[in-house]
Amino acid sequence: MHTELRAGISGNAKEGADSIVVSGGYVDDEDYGDLIIYTGHGGRGDSGRQVADQDINARGNAGLVRTYLEGWPVRVIRGAHKGSPHAPATGYQYGGLYRVDSYGSKVGADGFLIWQFKLVRIPDEEHRKAEDQAKETPGPAPVTTSLVQRVVRSSAVVQQIKDWYGHQCQVCGLILQVQGGYYSEGAHIQALGRPYNGPDVVENVLCLCPNDHVRFDNGAIYLSDDLKVVNAFTGAVEGQLRKHPRHRIGLTYVAQHRARWTTGRPRT
Amino acid sequence: MHTELRAGISGNAKEGADSIVVSGGYVDDEDYGDLIIYTGHGGRGDSGRQVADQDINARGNAGLVRTYLEGWPVRVIRGAHKGSPHAPATGYQYGGLYRVDSYGSKVGADGFLIWQFKLVRIPDEEHRKAEDQAKETPGPAPVTTSLVQRVVRSSAVVQQIKDWYGHQCQVCGLILQVQGGYYSEGAHIQALGRPYNGPDVVENVLCLCPNDHVRFDNGAIYLSDDLKVVNAFTGAVEGQLRKHPRHRIGLTYVAQHRARWTTGRPRT
Repeated sequence: MHTELRAGISGNAKEGADSIVVSGGYVDDEDYGDLIIYTGHGGRGDSGRQVADQDINARGNAGLVRTYLEGWPVRVIRGAHKGSPHAPATGYQYGGLYRVDSYGSKVGADGFLIWQFKLVRIPDEEHRKAEDQAKETPGPAPVTTSLVQRVVRSSAVVQQIKDWYGHQCQVCGLILQVQGGYYSEGAHIQALGRPYNGPDVVENVLCLCPNDHVRFDNGAIYLSDDLKVVNAFTGAVEGQLRKHPRHRIGLTYVAQHRARWTTGRPRT
Repeated sequence: MHTELRAGISGNAKEGADSIVVSGGYVDDEDYGDLIIYTGHGGRGDSGRQVADQDINARGNAGLVRTYLEGWPVRVIRGAHKGSPHAPATGYQYGGLYRVDSYGSKVGADGFLIWQFKLVRIPDEEHRKAEDQAKETPGPAPVTTSLVQRVVRSSAVVQQIKDWYGHQCQVCGLILQVQGGYYSEGAHIQALGRPYNGPDVVENVLCLCPNDHVRFDNGAIYLSDDLKVVNAFTGAVEGQLRKHPRHRIGLTYVAQHRARWTTGRPRT
Protein backbone atom coordinates (compact mmCIF):
# COMPACT_ATOMS: atom_id res chain seq x y z
CA MET A 1 0.00 0.00 0.00
CA HIS A 2 2.75 2.43 0.88
CA THR A 3 6.13 1.89 -0.71
CA GLU A 4 8.22 4.15 1.50
CA LEU A 5 6.85 3.81 5.02
CA ARG A 6 9.93 5.22 6.63
CA ALA A 7 9.99 8.29 4.41
CA GLY A 8 6.51 9.42 5.43
CA ILE A 9 5.70 10.64 1.94
CA SER A 10 5.70 8.23 -1.00
CA GLY A 11 6.18 9.99 -4.32
CA ASN A 12 8.12 12.61 -6.23
CA ALA A 13 7.74 15.87 -8.14
CA LYS A 14 6.85 14.22 -11.43
CA GLU A 15 4.34 11.62 -10.31
CA GLY A 16 3.00 13.33 -7.22
CA ALA A 17 2.62 11.75 -3.78
CA ASP A 18 0.31 8.74 -3.77
CA SER A 19 0.35 8.17 -0.01
CA ILE A 20 1.58 9.62 3.25
CA VAL A 21 2.01 8.25 6.75
CA VAL A 22 0.86 10.25 9.78
CA SER A 23 2.71 8.76 12.71
CA GLY A 24 3.35 11.59 15.11
CA GLY A 25 6.96 11.89 14.03
CA TYR A 26 6.79 15.63 13.45
CA VAL A 27 5.97 17.86 16.41
CA ASP A 28 4.08 20.38 14.24
CA ASP A 29 1.59 17.89 12.74
CA GLU A 30 -2.08 18.41 13.66
CA ASP A 31 -4.64 15.65 13.07
CA TYR A 32 -8.32 16.66 13.30
CA GLY A 33 -9.60 13.56 11.50
CA ASP A 34 -11.11 15.01 8.33
CA LEU A 35 -8.51 17.79 8.36
CA ILE A 36 -4.80 17.20 8.77
CA ILE A 37 -2.02 19.78 8.95
CA TYR A 38 0.84 17.64 7.72
CA THR A 39 4.48 18.63 8.03
CA GLY A 40 6.76 17.94 5.08
CA HIS A 41 9.88 15.80 5.46
CA GLY A 42 13.46 16.69 6.23
CA GLY A 43 15.43 18.63 8.83
CA ARG A 44 14.78 16.19 11.65
CA GLY A 45 17.59 14.98 13.92
CA ASP A 46 18.00 11.62 15.66
CA SER A 47 16.12 13.00 18.65
CA GLY A 48 13.01 13.45 16.49
CA ARG A 49 13.14 17.24 16.80
CA GLN A 50 13.78 19.69 13.94
CA VAL A 51 17.46 20.60 13.74
CA ALA A 52 17.52 22.19 10.27
CA ASP A 53 15.26 23.92 7.73
CA GLN A 54 13.08 21.85 5.42
CA ASP A 55 13.31 22.16 1.63
CA ILE A 56 10.12 22.39 -0.46
CA ASN A 57 12.03 20.89 -3.40
CA ALA A 58 12.92 17.74 -1.45
CA ARG A 59 11.50 14.64 -3.12
CA GLY A 60 8.39 13.94 -1.03
CA ASN A 61 7.55 17.61 -0.40
CA ALA A 62 7.66 18.40 -4.12
CA GLY A 63 5.51 15.28 -4.61
CA LEU A 64 2.81 16.71 -2.36
CA VAL A 65 3.03 20.05 -4.19
CA ARG A 66 2.44 18.29 -7.52
CA THR A 67 -0.48 16.35 -6.02
CA TYR A 68 -1.92 19.67 -4.87
CA LEU A 69 -1.35 21.41 -8.21
CA GLU A 70 -3.00 18.60 -10.17
CA GLY A 71 -5.91 18.03 -7.78
CA TRP A 72 -4.99 14.37 -7.30
CA PRO A 73 -6.08 12.32 -4.26
CA VAL A 74 -3.54 11.08 -1.72
CA ARG A 75 -3.94 8.03 0.53
CA VAL A 76 -3.54 8.70 4.26
CA ILE A 77 -2.15 5.98 6.52
CA ARG A 78 -2.01 6.52 10.26
CA GLY A 79 0.57 4.84 12.48
CA ALA A 80 0.06 4.24 16.22
CA HIS A 81 1.25 7.19 18.29
CA LYS A 82 0.26 9.17 21.34
CA GLY A 83 -1.53 12.49 21.23
CA SER A 84 -3.99 11.79 18.39
CA PRO A 85 -7.47 10.31 18.96
CA HIS A 86 -7.47 9.38 15.25
CA ALA A 87 -4.39 7.15 15.36
CA PRO A 88 -4.80 3.36 15.78
CA ALA A 89 -3.81 1.70 19.07
CA THR A 90 -1.20 -0.43 17.35
CA GLY A 91 0.32 -0.79 13.90
CA TYR A 92 -0.92 1.07 10.83
CA GLN A 93 -4.43 1.89 9.64
CA TYR A 94 -5.66 3.12 6.26
CA GLY A 95 -7.40 6.47 6.76
CA GLY A 96 -8.93 7.07 3.33
CA LEU A 97 -8.31 9.51 0.52
CA TYR A 98 -7.55 13.18 1.04
CA ARG A 99 -6.89 16.12 -1.22
CA VAL A 100 -4.14 18.66 -0.64
CA ASP A 101 -6.04 21.90 -0.11
CA SER A 102 -3.13 24.33 0.36
CA TYR A 103 0.44 24.54 1.54
CA GLY A 104 2.87 27.03 2.99
CA SER A 105 5.85 27.46 5.26
CA LYS A 106 6.38 28.70 8.79
CA VAL A 107 8.87 28.54 11.60
CA GLY A 108 7.98 25.41 13.55
CA ALA A 109 7.97 24.65 17.27
CA ASP A 110 11.69 23.93 17.21
CA GLY A 111 12.62 27.23 15.56
CA PHE A 112 13.37 25.90 12.09
CA LEU A 113 11.60 26.38 8.80
CA ILE A 114 8.96 23.75 8.06
CA TRP A 115 6.59 23.25 5.13
CA GLN A 116 3.02 22.26 5.90
CA PHE A 117 0.23 20.81 3.79
CA LYS A 118 -3.44 21.10 4.61
CA LEU A 119 -5.12 17.79 3.80
CA VAL A 120 -8.92 17.54 3.59
CA ARG A 121 -10.73 14.22 3.48
CA ILE A 122 -12.60 13.63 0.21
CA PRO A 123 -16.37 13.37 0.99
CA ASP A 124 -18.07 9.96 0.94
CA GLU A 125 -19.54 9.95 -2.54
CA GLU A 126 -16.52 11.46 -4.27
CA HIS A 127 -14.44 9.25 -2.03
CA ARG A 128 -15.81 6.04 -3.48
CA LYS A 129 -15.16 7.24 -7.00
CA ALA A 130 -11.63 8.38 -6.22
CA GLU A 131 -11.04 5.21 -4.21
CA ASP A 132 -12.02 3.07 -7.19
CA GLN A 133 -9.68 5.06 -9.37
CA ALA A 134 -6.87 4.65 -6.87
CA LYS A 135 -7.44 0.89 -6.66
CA GLU A 136 -7.47 0.46 -10.42
CA THR A 137 -4.06 2.05 -10.68
CA PRO A 138 -1.62 0.50 -8.19
CA GLY A 139 1.17 2.74 -9.58
CA PRO A 140 2.06 6.19 -8.41
CA ALA A 141 -0.56 8.15 -10.37
CA PRO A 142 -4.09 7.28 -9.22
CA VAL A 143 -5.75 9.21 -12.04
CA THR A 144 -7.92 7.52 -14.63
CA THR A 145 -10.64 10.06 -15.25
CA SER A 146 -10.98 13.78 -14.83
CA LEU A 147 -10.17 15.30 -11.43
CA VAL A 148 -10.55 18.86 -10.27
CA GLN A 149 -7.19 20.59 -10.54
CA ARG A 150 -8.14 24.14 -9.65
CA VAL A 151 -11.30 25.95 -8.62
CA VAL A 152 -11.59 29.73 -8.94
CA ARG A 153 -14.35 31.37 -6.92
CA SER A 154 -16.25 34.60 -7.30
CA SER A 155 -18.11 36.67 -4.70
CA ALA A 156 -19.70 40.10 -4.33
CA VAL A 157 -16.42 41.38 -2.87
CA VAL A 158 -14.45 39.94 -5.77
CA GLN A 159 -16.89 41.58 -8.20
CA GLN A 160 -16.28 44.98 -6.60
CA ILE A 161 -12.53 44.58 -7.00
CA LYS A 162 -12.84 43.54 -10.65
CA ASP A 163 -15.06 46.51 -11.39
CA TRP A 164 -12.56 48.94 -9.85
CA TYR A 165 -9.72 47.58 -11.97
CA GLY A 166 -11.71 46.86 -15.14
CA HIS A 167 -10.19 43.35 -15.03
CA GLN A 168 -6.64 44.71 -15.26
CA CYS A 169 -4.11 42.56 -13.39
CA GLN A 170 -2.62 44.52 -10.49
CA VAL A 171 0.70 42.69 -10.91
CA CYS A 172 1.44 42.67 -14.66
CA GLY A 173 -1.13 45.11 -16.07
CA LEU A 174 -2.65 42.59 -18.48
CA ILE A 175 -6.31 42.94 -19.42
CA LEU A 176 -7.28 39.50 -20.64
CA GLN A 177 -9.78 39.90 -23.46
CA VAL A 178 -12.06 37.04 -24.55
CA GLN A 179 -15.00 36.93 -26.98
CA GLY A 180 -17.66 39.24 -25.56
CA GLY A 181 -15.82 40.33 -22.43
CA TYR A 182 -12.82 40.37 -20.16
CA TYR A 183 -11.54 37.83 -17.65
CA SER A 184 -9.83 38.33 -14.31
CA GLU A 185 -9.77 36.58 -10.95
CA GLY A 186 -10.12 37.76 -7.37
CA ALA A 187 -7.16 36.62 -5.25
CA HIS A 188 -7.40 36.59 -1.48
CA ILE A 189 -4.15 37.85 0.04
CA GLN A 190 -4.53 36.00 3.36
CA ALA A 191 -6.13 32.76 2.15
CA LEU A 192 -9.70 31.82 3.10
CA GLY A 193 -10.35 28.82 5.35
CA ARG A 194 -8.23 27.00 7.91
CA PRO A 195 -5.46 27.35 8.82
CA TYR A 196 -5.14 30.87 7.34
CA ASN A 197 -8.70 32.18 7.94
CA GLY A 198 -8.44 35.32 5.82
CA PRO A 199 -11.65 37.37 5.45
CA ASP A 200 -13.63 37.97 2.23
CA VAL A 201 -13.30 41.78 2.28
CA VAL A 202 -11.99 44.21 -0.36
CA GLU A 203 -8.91 44.97 1.77
CA ASN A 204 -7.91 41.31 1.40
CA VAL A 205 -8.57 40.82 -2.34
CA LEU A 206 -6.50 41.60 -5.44
CA CYS A 207 -7.57 41.65 -9.10
CA LEU A 208 -5.15 39.35 -10.92
CA CYS A 209 -4.76 37.55 -14.23
CA PRO A 210 -4.89 33.74 -13.88
CA ASN A 211 -1.11 33.37 -14.19
CA ASP A 212 -0.32 35.88 -11.45
CA HIS A 213 -3.12 34.42 -9.31
CA VAL A 214 -1.43 31.01 -9.45
CA ARG A 215 1.96 32.61 -8.73
CA PHE A 216 0.61 34.62 -5.80
CA ASP A 217 -1.36 31.72 -4.28
CA ASN A 218 1.64 29.41 -4.49
CA GLY A 219 4.39 31.66 -3.24
CA ALA A 220 6.17 32.60 -6.48
CA ILE A 221 5.56 36.29 -5.71
CA TYR A 222 4.78 38.25 -2.57
CA LEU A 223 4.27 41.91 -1.62
CA SER A 224 6.40 44.28 0.43
CA ASP A 225 4.76 46.75 2.81
CA ASP A 226 5.12 49.48 0.19
CA LEU A 227 3.27 47.15 -2.23
CA LYS A 228 6.15 46.20 -4.46
CA VAL A 229 5.84 42.83 -6.19
CA VAL A 230 8.80 40.65 -5.22
CA ASN A 231 9.89 37.49 -7.04
CA ALA A 232 10.28 34.89 -4.28
CA PHE A 233 12.93 32.89 -6.15
CA THR A 234 15.29 35.74 -7.05
CA GLY A 235 14.30 38.37 -4.49
CA ALA A 236 14.08 40.87 -7.38
CA VAL A 237 11.36 43.52 -7.43
CA GLU A 238 9.13 42.87 -10.46
CA GLY A 239 7.33 46.19 -10.16
CA GLN A 240 4.86 48.25 -8.18
CA LEU A 241 1.41 46.77 -7.49
CA ARG A 242 -1.27 48.76 -9.34
CA LYS A 243 -3.77 50.32 -6.94
CA HIS A 244 -7.15 51.93 -7.49
CA PRO A 245 -7.58 55.07 -5.29
CA ARG A 246 -10.61 53.55 -3.56
CA HIS A 247 -8.91 50.22 -2.89
CA ARG A 248 -7.31 50.06 0.54
CA ILE A 249 -5.09 47.01 0.92
CA GLY A 250 -4.70 45.54 4.39
CA LEU A 251 -1.01 45.37 5.32
CA THR A 252 -1.67 42.75 8.00
CA TYR A 253 -2.96 40.45 5.22
CA VAL A 254 0.08 41.29 3.10
CA ALA A 255 2.37 40.47 6.04
CA GLN A 256 0.58 37.18 6.70
CA HIS A 257 0.91 36.10 3.05
CA ARG A 258 4.58 37.09 3.07
CA ALA A 259 5.26 35.13 6.26
CA ARG A 260 3.62 32.07 4.69
CA TRP A 261 6.01 32.14 1.75
CA THR A 262 9.14 34.14 2.39
CA THR A 263 10.27 31.86 5.15
CA GLY A 264 10.81 29.50 2.24
CA ARG A 265 13.84 31.45 1.03
CA PRO A 266 17.23 30.09 2.03
CA ARG A 267 18.62 31.74 5.15
CA THR A 268 21.71 33.78 4.43
CA MET B 1 -38.81 38.86 -12.00
CA HIS B 2 -37.52 39.71 -15.45
CA THR B 3 -37.05 43.37 -16.26
CA GLU B 4 -36.69 43.13 -20.04
CA LEU B 5 -39.11 40.44 -21.19
CA ARG B 6 -39.09 41.56 -24.78
CA ALA B 7 -35.30 41.56 -25.00
CA GLY B 8 -34.96 37.88 -24.09
CA ILE B 9 -31.82 38.51 -22.05
CA SER B 10 -31.90 40.86 -19.06
CA GLY B 11 -28.47 42.20 -18.18
CA ASN B 12 -25.29 43.74 -19.52
CA ALA B 13 -21.55 43.19 -19.75
CA LYS B 14 -20.80 44.73 -16.37
CA GLU B 15 -23.48 43.13 -14.22
CA GLY B 16 -24.00 39.91 -16.14
CA ALA B 17 -27.36 38.50 -17.23
CA ASP B 18 -29.68 37.78 -14.31
CA SER B 19 -32.44 36.16 -16.36
CA ILE B 20 -33.34 34.97 -19.83
CA VAL B 21 -36.60 34.11 -21.56
CA VAL B 22 -36.86 30.97 -23.69
CA SER B 23 -39.89 31.55 -25.89
CA GLY B 24 -39.15 29.82 -29.16
CA GLY B 25 -38.32 33.09 -30.86
CA TYR B 26 -35.01 31.87 -32.27
CA VAL B 27 -35.06 28.95 -34.69
CA ASP B 28 -31.72 27.61 -33.45
CA ASP B 29 -32.69 27.29 -29.77
CA GLU B 30 -32.77 23.76 -28.32
CA ASP B 31 -34.52 23.04 -25.01
CA TYR B 32 -33.80 19.65 -23.40
CA GLY B 33 -35.09 20.66 -19.97
CA ASP B 34 -31.96 20.51 -17.83
CA LEU B 35 -29.85 21.53 -20.82
CA ILE B 36 -30.66 24.47 -23.05
CA ILE B 37 -28.79 25.62 -26.16
CA TYR B 38 -29.78 29.28 -26.10
CA THR B 39 -29.27 31.61 -29.02
CA GLY B 40 -28.05 35.14 -28.28
CA HIS B 41 -30.03 38.18 -29.34
CA GLY B 42 -29.89 40.31 -32.47
CA GLY B 43 -30.01 39.87 -36.22
CA ARG B 44 -33.65 38.85 -36.35
CA GLY B 45 -36.08 40.37 -38.86
CA ASP B 46 -39.81 41.08 -38.49
CA SER B 47 -40.51 37.60 -39.84
CA GLY B 48 -38.73 36.05 -36.84
CA ARG B 49 -35.94 34.61 -39.03
CA GLN B 50 -32.29 35.64 -38.88
CA VAL B 51 -31.53 38.33 -41.45
CA ALA B 52 -28.13 39.50 -40.16
CA ASP B 53 -25.16 38.35 -38.08
CA GLN B 54 -25.31 38.52 -34.29
CA ASP B 55 -22.74 40.47 -32.26
CA ILE B 56 -21.20 38.90 -29.13
CA ASN B 57 -20.61 42.40 -27.75
CA ALA B 58 -24.31 43.30 -27.94
CA ARG B 59 -25.69 44.11 -24.50
CA GLY B 60 -27.47 40.88 -23.54
CA ASN B 61 -24.95 38.58 -25.23
CA ALA B 62 -22.04 40.21 -23.42
CA GLY B 63 -24.14 39.91 -20.26
CA LEU B 64 -24.34 36.14 -20.69
CA VAL B 65 -20.58 36.00 -21.34
CA ARG B 66 -19.89 37.82 -18.07
CA THR B 67 -22.29 35.48 -16.23
CA TYR B 68 -20.35 32.56 -17.70
CA LEU B 69 -16.93 34.01 -16.88
CA GLU B 70 -17.92 34.72 -13.26
CA GLY B 71 -19.79 31.46 -12.66
CA TRP B 72 -22.98 33.28 -11.70
CA PRO B 73 -26.43 31.66 -11.88
CA VAL B 74 -29.04 32.88 -14.37
CA ARG B 75 -32.81 32.55 -13.98
CA VAL B 76 -34.58 30.78 -16.84
CA ILE B 77 -38.15 31.76 -17.73
CA ARG B 78 -40.02 29.83 -20.37
CA GLY B 79 -42.78 31.39 -22.47
CA ALA B 80 -45.54 29.36 -24.17
CA HIS B 81 -44.51 28.21 -27.64
CA LYS B 82 -44.80 25.19 -29.88
CA GLY B 83 -42.08 22.64 -30.38
CA SER B 84 -40.84 22.36 -26.76
CA PRO B 85 -42.28 19.88 -24.25
CA HIS B 86 -40.74 22.04 -21.49
CA ALA B 87 -42.64 25.22 -22.36
CA PRO B 88 -45.85 26.07 -20.46
CA ALA B 89 -49.22 25.84 -22.25
CA THR B 90 -49.88 29.53 -21.76
CA GLY B 91 -48.08 32.57 -20.40
CA TYR B 92 -44.69 32.42 -18.69
CA GLN B 93 -43.23 29.92 -16.20
CA TYR B 94 -40.15 30.17 -14.00
CA GLY B 95 -37.79 27.34 -14.91
CA GLY B 96 -35.17 27.59 -12.16
CA LEU B 97 -31.53 28.57 -12.03
CA TYR B 98 -28.98 27.58 -14.64
CA ARG B 99 -25.29 28.16 -15.11
CA VAL B 100 -23.71 29.09 -18.44
CA ASP B 101 -21.45 26.15 -19.20
CA SER B 102 -19.89 27.33 -22.47
CA TYR B 103 -20.53 29.48 -25.51
CA GLY B 104 -19.51 29.78 -29.13
CA SER B 105 -20.63 30.86 -32.57
CA LYS B 106 -21.84 29.07 -35.67
CA VAL B 107 -23.76 29.71 -38.85
CA GLY B 108 -27.41 29.17 -37.92
CA ALA B 109 -30.30 27.59 -39.81
CA ASP B 110 -30.92 30.84 -41.71
CA GLY B 111 -27.33 31.18 -42.90
CA PHE B 112 -26.23 33.99 -40.58
CA LEU B 113 -23.78 34.03 -37.72
CA ILE B 114 -25.35 33.26 -34.34
CA TRP B 115 -23.88 33.03 -30.84
CA GLN B 116 -25.07 30.20 -28.62
CA PHE B 117 -24.83 29.57 -24.90
CA LYS B 118 -25.05 26.15 -23.29
CA LEU B 119 -27.11 26.44 -20.10
CA VAL B 120 -27.09 23.64 -17.53
CA ARG B 121 -29.60 23.49 -14.70
CA ILE B 122 -28.03 23.84 -11.26
CA PRO B 123 -28.61 20.59 -9.27
CA ASP B 124 -31.22 20.52 -6.49
CA GLU B 125 -29.04 21.09 -3.46
CA GLU B 126 -26.84 23.77 -5.00
CA HIS B 127 -30.01 25.11 -6.56
CA ARG B 128 -31.62 25.90 -3.24
CA LYS B 129 -28.52 27.74 -2.06
CA ALA B 130 -28.17 29.71 -5.29
CA GLU B 131 -31.94 30.34 -5.30
CA ASP B 132 -31.76 31.82 -1.81
CA GLN B 133 -28.90 34.02 -2.90
CA ALA B 134 -30.82 35.16 -5.96
CA LYS B 135 -33.90 35.97 -3.85
CA GLU B 136 -31.91 37.95 -1.33
CA THR B 137 -30.59 40.20 -4.04
CA PRO B 138 -33.40 41.43 -6.29
CA GLY B 139 -30.92 43.52 -8.29
CA PRO B 140 -28.93 42.40 -11.27
CA ALA B 141 -26.12 40.61 -9.45
CA PRO B 142 -27.39 37.56 -7.55
CA VAL B 143 -24.11 36.96 -5.77
CA THR B 144 -23.73 37.18 -2.03
CA THR B 145 -21.34 34.38 -1.23
CA SER B 146 -18.68 32.48 -3.11
CA LEU B 147 -19.59 30.89 -6.44
CA VAL B 148 -17.49 28.71 -8.68
CA GLN B 149 -16.02 30.86 -11.43
CA ARG B 150 -13.76 28.39 -13.16
CA VAL B 151 -12.90 24.72 -12.75
CA VAL B 152 -9.72 23.27 -14.24
CA ARG B 153 -9.59 19.49 -14.61
CA SER B 154 -6.78 17.01 -14.80
CA SER B 155 -6.70 13.49 -16.29
CA ALA B 156 -4.19 10.80 -17.25
CA VAL B 157 -4.16 12.22 -20.78
CA VAL B 158 -3.55 15.73 -19.49
CA GLN B 159 -0.70 14.42 -17.32
CA GLN B 160 0.98 12.84 -20.36
CA ILE B 161 0.83 16.14 -22.22
CA LYS B 162 2.25 18.10 -19.26
CA ASP B 163 5.10 15.63 -18.93
CA TRP B 164 6.01 15.96 -22.61
CA TYR B 165 6.18 19.74 -22.36
CA GLY B 166 7.61 20.00 -18.85
CA HIS B 167 4.75 22.44 -18.10
CA GLN B 168 5.88 24.86 -20.82
CA CYS B 169 3.00 26.70 -22.46
CA GLN B 170 2.71 25.73 -26.12
CA VAL B 171 1.47 29.21 -27.00
CA CYS B 172 3.73 31.66 -25.13
CA GLY B 173 6.59 29.46 -23.90
CA LEU B 174 6.10 30.37 -20.24
CA ILE B 175 7.05 27.81 -17.59
CA LEU B 176 5.09 28.90 -14.54
CA GLN B 177 7.20 28.18 -11.46
CA VAL B 178 5.66 27.97 -7.98
CA GLN B 179 7.13 26.90 -4.63
CA GLY B 180 8.12 23.24 -5.01
CA GLY B 181 7.03 22.75 -8.60
CA TYR B 182 5.60 23.98 -11.88
CA TYR B 183 2.04 24.67 -12.93
CA SER B 184 0.33 24.19 -16.29
CA GLU B 185 -3.11 23.20 -17.52
CA GLY B 186 -4.38 20.73 -20.08
CA ALA B 187 -6.64 22.42 -22.63
CA HIS B 188 -8.99 20.39 -24.81
CA ILE B 189 -8.99 21.74 -28.36
CA GLN B 190 -12.47 20.47 -29.24
CA ALA B 191 -14.26 20.99 -25.93
CA LEU B 192 -15.52 18.04 -23.85
CA GLY B 193 -19.26 17.52 -23.34
CA ARG B 194 -22.30 18.59 -25.30
CA PRO B 195 -22.65 20.21 -27.77
CA TYR B 196 -18.97 19.89 -28.77
CA ASN B 197 -18.22 16.31 -27.62
CA GLY B 198 -14.46 16.41 -28.04
CA PRO B 199 -12.53 13.33 -26.85
CA ASP B 200 -10.02 13.14 -23.95
CA VAL B 201 -7.07 11.99 -26.09
CA VAL B 202 -3.57 13.44 -26.45
CA GLU B 203 -4.33 14.54 -30.03
CA ASN B 204 -7.02 16.84 -28.60
CA VAL B 205 -5.10 18.35 -25.65
CA LEU B 206 -2.61 21.22 -25.40
CA CYS B 207 -0.30 22.17 -22.51
CA LEU B 208 -1.05 25.82 -21.74
CA CYS B 209 -0.44 28.43 -19.06
CA PRO B 210 -3.66 29.53 -17.31
CA ASN B 211 -3.83 32.81 -19.26
CA ASP B 212 -3.57 31.17 -22.68
CA HIS B 213 -5.97 28.43 -21.55
CA VAL B 214 -8.62 31.07 -20.80
CA ARG B 215 -7.86 32.80 -24.11
CA PHE B 216 -8.04 29.56 -26.09
CA ASP B 217 -11.23 28.31 -24.38
CA ASN B 218 -12.99 31.61 -24.96
CA GLY B 219 -12.05 32.35 -28.52
CA ALA B 220 -9.35 35.02 -28.10
CA ILE B 221 -6.89 32.81 -30.02
CA TYR B 222 -7.26 29.93 -32.44
CA LEU B 223 -4.95 27.72 -34.52
CA SER B 224 -4.38 27.53 -38.27
CA ASP B 225 -3.87 24.15 -39.95
CA ASP B 226 -0.11 24.73 -39.90
CA LEU B 227 -0.42 25.33 -36.14
CA LYS B 228 0.13 29.05 -36.06
CA VAL B 229 -1.45 30.89 -33.11
CA VAL B 230 -3.83 33.53 -34.46
CA ASN B 231 -5.22 36.46 -32.46
CA ALA B 232 -8.98 36.33 -33.10
CA PHE B 233 -9.46 40.07 -32.58
CA THR B 234 -6.73 41.33 -34.90
CA GLY B 235 -6.18 38.34 -37.17
CA ALA B 236 -2.45 38.69 -36.49
CA VAL B 237 -0.25 35.60 -36.10
CA GLU B 238 1.15 35.57 -32.56
CA GLY B 239 3.62 32.81 -33.28
CA GLN B 240 4.08 29.13 -33.99
CA LEU B 241 2.57 26.60 -31.57
CA ARG B 242 5.32 24.69 -29.75
CA LYS B 243 5.13 20.95 -30.48
CA HIS B 244 6.82 17.97 -28.88
CA PRO B 245 7.95 15.41 -31.51
CA ARG B 246 5.74 12.71 -29.95
CA HIS B 247 2.67 14.92 -29.77
CA ARG B 248 0.39 14.56 -32.77
CA ILE B 249 -2.28 17.24 -32.88
CA GLY B 250 -5.60 16.36 -34.52
CA LEU B 251 -6.38 18.86 -37.25
CA THR B 252 -10.07 17.97 -37.19
CA TYR B 253 -10.16 19.17 -33.56
CA VAL B 254 -8.25 22.31 -34.54
CA ALA B 255 -10.76 22.96 -37.34
CA GLN B 256 -13.72 22.43 -35.02
CA HIS B 257 -12.33 24.88 -32.45
CA ARG B 258 -11.65 27.42 -35.20
CA ALA B 259 -15.17 27.08 -36.60
CA ARG B 260 -16.58 27.67 -33.13
CA TRP B 261 -14.78 31.00 -32.81
CA THR B 262 -13.65 32.44 -36.10
CA THR B 263 -17.19 32.82 -37.39
CA GLY B 264 -17.28 35.52 -34.75
CA ARG B 265 -15.05 37.81 -36.78
CA PRO B 266 -16.78 40.53 -38.79
CA ARG B 267 -17.40 39.51 -42.39
CA THR B 268 -15.43 41.60 -44.85
